[in-house]
Amino acid sequence: MRIALGIEYYGGSYCGWQTQPSGCAIQDHVERALEKFATTRISTVTAGRTDTGVHALTQVVHFDTGLEREEASWVRGTNANLDPDIRVLWAKRVADDFHARFSARSRTYDYLLLNDGVDAGLWKGRVGWFHAPLDAGAMHEAARAILGEHDFTAFRASECQAASPLRIVTRADVTSKDKIVRLRFTANGFLHHMVRNLVGSLVYIGSGRKPPNWIAELLLARDRSMAAPTFAPDGLYLAAIEYDRQWGLPEFSERYPFMNLQ
Amino acid sequence: MRIALGIEYYGGSYCGWQTQPSGCAIQDHVERALEKFATTRISTVTAGRTDTGVHALTQVVHFDTGLEREEASWVRGTNANLDPDIRVLWAKRVADDFHARFSARSRTYDYLLLNDGVDAGLWKGRVGWFHAPLDAGAMHEAARAILGEHDFTAFRASECQAASPLRIVTRADVTSKDKIVRLRFTANGFLHHMVRNLVGSLVYIGSGRKPPNWIAELLLARDRSMAAPTFAPDGLYLAAIEYDRQWGLPEFSERYPFMNLQ
Repeated sequence: MRIALGIEYYGGSYCGWQTQPSGCAIQDHVERALEKFATTRISTVTAGRTDTGVHALTQVVHFDTGLEREEASWVRGTNANLDPDIRVLWAKRVADDFHARFSARSRTYDYLLLNDGVDAGLWKGRVGWFHAPLDAGAMHEAARAILGEHDFTAFRASECQAASPLRIVTRADVTSKDKIVRLRFTANGFLHHMVRNLVGSLVYIGSGRKPPNWIAELLLARDRSMAAPTFAPDGLYLAAIEYDRQWGLPEFSERYPFMNLQ
Repeated sequence: MRIALGIEYYGGSYCGWQTQPSGCAIQDHVERALEKFATTRISTVTAGRTDTGVHALTQVVHFDTGLEREEASWVRGTNANLDPDIRVLWAKRVADDFHARFSARSRTYDYLLLNDGVDAGLWKGRVGWFHAPLDAGAMHEAARAILGEHDFTAFRASECQAASPLRIVTRADVTSKDKIVRLRFTANGFLHHMVRNLVGSLVYIGSGRKPPNWIAELLLARDRSMAAPTFAPDGLYLAAIEYDRQWGLPEFSERYPFMNLQ
């Protein structure tokens, strides 16, 4: 049978999601915990790989197993063997044609940016930082240029292995409250470093170094070297993987209302 | 001259605020950083000592120095020598009769509690946790019993060194949003473990194990052994130290709007 898991984690302690020979990846930790509980090797398929230092409010994986266990037992049994900053939030038995990656309609990423003269202490590793005042309204206006289907070559890391640079973006919002600017992006998929590269260029606009129409120019130019540098991973959160309701998976995690600025 | 500093920190990495022979306390880190910047030993007086694992949105200290420096230089110079999860937010030259502890009118502490079947991963160390559903309304009603002047012997740690168990509480609010319950207390001062002991007993009420009038009964009985155990330090934040406006110190830190549930 096929089981899907929803997992949250603090990415600052690990070398990204994807399994590594040294075993330092979040996937390695999750698979070791599953193996301890199931007493047999379990391989997971993930919806969205995250880089070193990137966090997840809900990552989704699936795996196949012959083991008959209650859904709640998969949650408790795996968590009992996991580091405390990785938690399985839910387990659901799913149909055999569900696929964590290919069944996903879209992914949502949040970027939290502390906009203040002093960088984060209490929230170190959990927010990006920019010292000079940002115009979140200008950033929001600029971000609208990426809505729809575009070639995101300008915002794609050189090591990106995706077959196509085309992605369909359905949400690009920039909001702010007090000293925090939140950037939220939903797309059918994201290229390597795409969110952090977009954040870097939007910060250039927010600080007045570039005009709001610069994002549209960069998209057309399709030249990574014209855009701003990649922003730090610290403020990046895989917020949600969206699936069709037919699969019966839980909605967006509402455990941490502070993550929602409104 | 006398300088006041506002400082935020993540308490999970340190052995509390107050200086320790091993040098592991936040005060030790701050004083070492001040010494590196000032090239002379500087001793700080603090507004509110916090225990191991307790965080601060704004701790306030003062110190005396003969060194003439811009306020912004004290901020930058100290931060350059501090661990990244401790940050000086502001420095203000204050009158010689200002005293970080004795000039404080009141202190405000927040306790953040994750109320969900699965404990915190992403926010590990930053929220307390209770697994069964809590009635925040009943907790709020119960908390109102501590408003005004009371003998807080029932909520005082046995090792508490305060001369008197009397404290005047001016705010005791329990609010909730999604899976987070926030308890906020303002008082002229707090006894050792007073907030964490109040949280423990309020959780007994929120979970239905005790009725809302239990807090009033515990206050009258003045017996620590009748009350609930001390709650974990993880969710406790020194939120603010309130001074008269005459001192001209910055108001409540608004760097992290997520800390405010409304």
